[in-house]
Amino acid sequence: MTGSTLAELGRRAKAASRVLASASTADKDAALQACAAALVEATDAILAANAIDVESAQERGMSATVIDRLRLDAGRVESMAGGLRQVAGLADPVGEVLDGWVRPNGLRISRVRVPLGVVAIIYENRPNVTSDAAGLCLKSGNAAFLRGSSGAIQSNIAIAASLRGACESVGLPADSVVLVEETSHAAAVEFMRLRGYIDVLIPRGGPSLIASILEHATVPYVIDGDGNCHLYVDESADLEMAARIATNAKTQRPSVCNAAETLLVHRAVAEEFLAGITGVLPGVELVADPGALALIPGAAGAVAAVEDDWSTEFLDLKMAVRVVDDLDEAIAHITRYGSGHSEAIVTRSLEAAERFTREVDAAAVVVNASTRFVDGEEFGFGAEIGISTQKLHARGPMGLRELTTAKYVVRGDGQTRG
Amino acid sequence: MTGSTLAELGRRAKAASRVLASASTADKDAALQACAAALVEATDAILAANAIDVESAQERGMSATVIDRLRLDAGRVESMAGGLRQVAGLADPVGEVLDGWVRPNGLRISRVRVPLGVVAIIYENRPNVTSDAAGLCLKSGNAAFLRGSSGAIQSNIAIAASLRGACESVGLPADSVVLVEETSHAAAVEFMRLRGYIDVLIPRGGPSLIASILEHATVPYVIDGDGNCHLYVDESADLEMAARIATNAKTQRPSVCNAAETLLVHRAVAEEFLAGITGVLPGVELVADPGALALIPGAAGAVAAVEDDWSTEFLDLKMAVRVVDDLDEAIAHITRYGSGHSEAIVTRSLEAAERFTREVDAAAVVVNASTRFVDGEEFGFGAEIGISTQKLHARGPMGLRELTTAKYVVRGDGQTRG
Repeated sequence: MTGSTLAELGRRAKAASRVLASASTADKDAALQACAAALVEATDAILAANAIDVESAQERGMSATVIDRLRLDAGRVESMAGGLRQVAGLADPVGEVLDGWVRPNGLRISRVRVPLGVVAIIYENRPNVTSDAAGLCLKSGNAAFLRGSSGAIQSNIAIAASLRGACESVGLPADSVVLVEETSHAAAVEFMRLRGYIDVLIPRGGPSLIASILEHATVPYVIDGDGNCHLYVDESADLEMAARIATNAKTQRPSVCNAAETLLVHRAVAEEFLAGITGVLPGVELVADPGALALIPGAAGAVAAVEDDWSTEFLDLKMAVRVVDDLDEAIAHITRYGSGHSEAIVTRSLEAAERFTREVDAAAVVVNASTRFVDGEEFGFGAEIGISTQKLHARGPMGLRELTTAKYVVRGDGQTRG
Repeated sequence: MTGSTLAELGRRAKAASRVLASASTADKDAALQACAAALVEATDAILAANAIDVESAQERGMSATVIDRLRLDAGRVESMAGGLRQVAGLADPVGEVLDGWVRPNGLRISRVRVPLGVVAIIYENRPNVTSDAAGLCLKSGNAAFLRGSSGAIQSNIAIAASLRGACESVGLPADSVVLVEETSHAAAVEFMRLRGYIDVLIPRGGPSLIASILEHATVPYVIDGDGNCHLYVDESADLEMAARIATNAKTQRPSVCNAAETLLVHRAVAEEFLAGITGVLPGVELVADPGALALIPGAAGAVAAVEDDWSTEFLDLKMAVRVVDDLDEAIAHITRYGSGHSEAIVTRSLEAAERFTREVDAAAVVVNASTRFVDGEEFGFGAEIGISTQKLHARGPMGLRELTTAKYVVRGDGQTRG
């Protein structure tokens, strides 16, 4: 696709989206299976392309983490193929009748789930996103318009070529998957402004990408934002359960958005709970308010929290701890510092559980379980394209359903408006 | 609220929204009834304020249409109050459980409808929007953050003062309704960028307002865009029905977005249908393609359409007419020129109806009825805040439901992720 202007690419994706919108589930699933087979078959070519990206990343002195995300091997290619086969097995959201009623004048109105059209994704150095995103778009009847980063461009080109060929082999448009090969910043800004070709843009990247979208985008977008998640241990909590949940929410995978970042403990149980905190959060660096600091054993090496700590998504083995006087103070803290992602309470009080779930304003409120469950797989969606922290369109984990919109179908027998 | 910065106003609306989110239906309905009573009681003050706006509009030489929209009288104030009472009678969307399931690990997940928070509206010289929008926001548990135009500012201040007092009189925050009194363009841009305070912005205005939002807004928004609506008369159409629907769709109220702008006629019935077009569209200025021009009687005074006519929303007694070879050509025309609002077919063919509803990409597709039915009242929503022509969040008429979002509530008994 070298040399094509972005608008030309957009036009092609749009044209493909019209075909995909009417494609049968069987055809889309056949395409997904063909894509999976094509990836496996093209393993050597994909790995050769990936080696160029990895070498270039090493030359530019990228960190080991970045290079690990970028690097593919036969197992990872097989795992991308497995992801596509899994998506083929999910229910097709398109065509679901969401609502239907008859008006007094006899008009029959129904609201039917339809694809969005062209779903654009801007993403970073993870070549697996090329395949994962294309698969979810394909199953939900959308064309995938992909703009990965320059650091993974050779890998992305090789993967997209396989997927495009596979779509064509089963009679769907090659342009069901369109990859932007121009990876400059200016092209990214132009991409965000392709109104008329892009129906939704889903950015998968850090704060600077989000800021750029807020500033420049004219196409509709869904933001997959930060997760500054809290765990509140209520005065009535089962403290053993609270300990298990705190361990899991902070340490099971600290680098992800649904890991907990701040622990709030009710004053009535703070002494007992915090006395054992080194066992609950082994190896976790603690920053604490004065109330918590006085109760945390010296061996934990906790230091005083600074204001910024309460709003920071550490994404690491680090946690802020605060003792609160009551549920009100816990909710007020979350209201002030939370990012609207996932917020959990451990409690035995029905009233506290009800108030927490009602008054905390977040994509997900969790009672007596780990914040780590807030993702598409754990919710049972089979796969996810991201976790929305905005309130419009999609909120929380986004699966196939969130890649659709609705259309009203109105059927009459000659009605006119009086 | 003079002198307050926009951010201060936003903070106040946000604080009020937290109270409203937990308010009972009974309290919200009591507030709506109190608002209605307060408007009627304040009729004299509202009309006095309105007189200042009207006088100023006359001095600035505004058109009669603009002044008519701006001018209030006792009947119009009563009608605003009636609108609020009607909204009080609608079902409360908040708290509806949209979905719920249990995961294999015992986690119980439900998706619950909740208010958006702060709903911002930017609107033009129609003071009734102040009351209408506030009522819909209140019922759906949202704070209304209103930014009307300078031309209606005195009226808006008087109306908002009544509504704020009424909310307070029943124990809800006065800041349930916050009016921005600074009406400069710079303030409008600042308003569109109040991320953190505004959960959704719904513009009610023309193309220049929409363009400004696309360029400047960083808050989420729902666009209520143009309606370039088509009526397609299929070869199998009942031509009498087609005539009735064409008359209604074009002439019943030509100035609104769901009026039809282009008539597409299948070649097989074009001669018969267009022979009687002066009776079908009396007083309508016709612009036509060569095929239609050859068939439209000279008395109709039709002229050749220019390219721009096909994409113009005339909003007037003017219609573009084209003869098409078949359904494919009709759908292709709509795909090229339509604005994704409302598209209608008149047909007796099941296949044509199915293809049209499936392949035409619009908020509403209508079979054998007038496009004029595509609005919130006619759909049975009781009231509408606008008609969305975007695909994200809301598509088509927006009622109370579209002023809400969802929250996941996850209940466990100590689950941790493995």
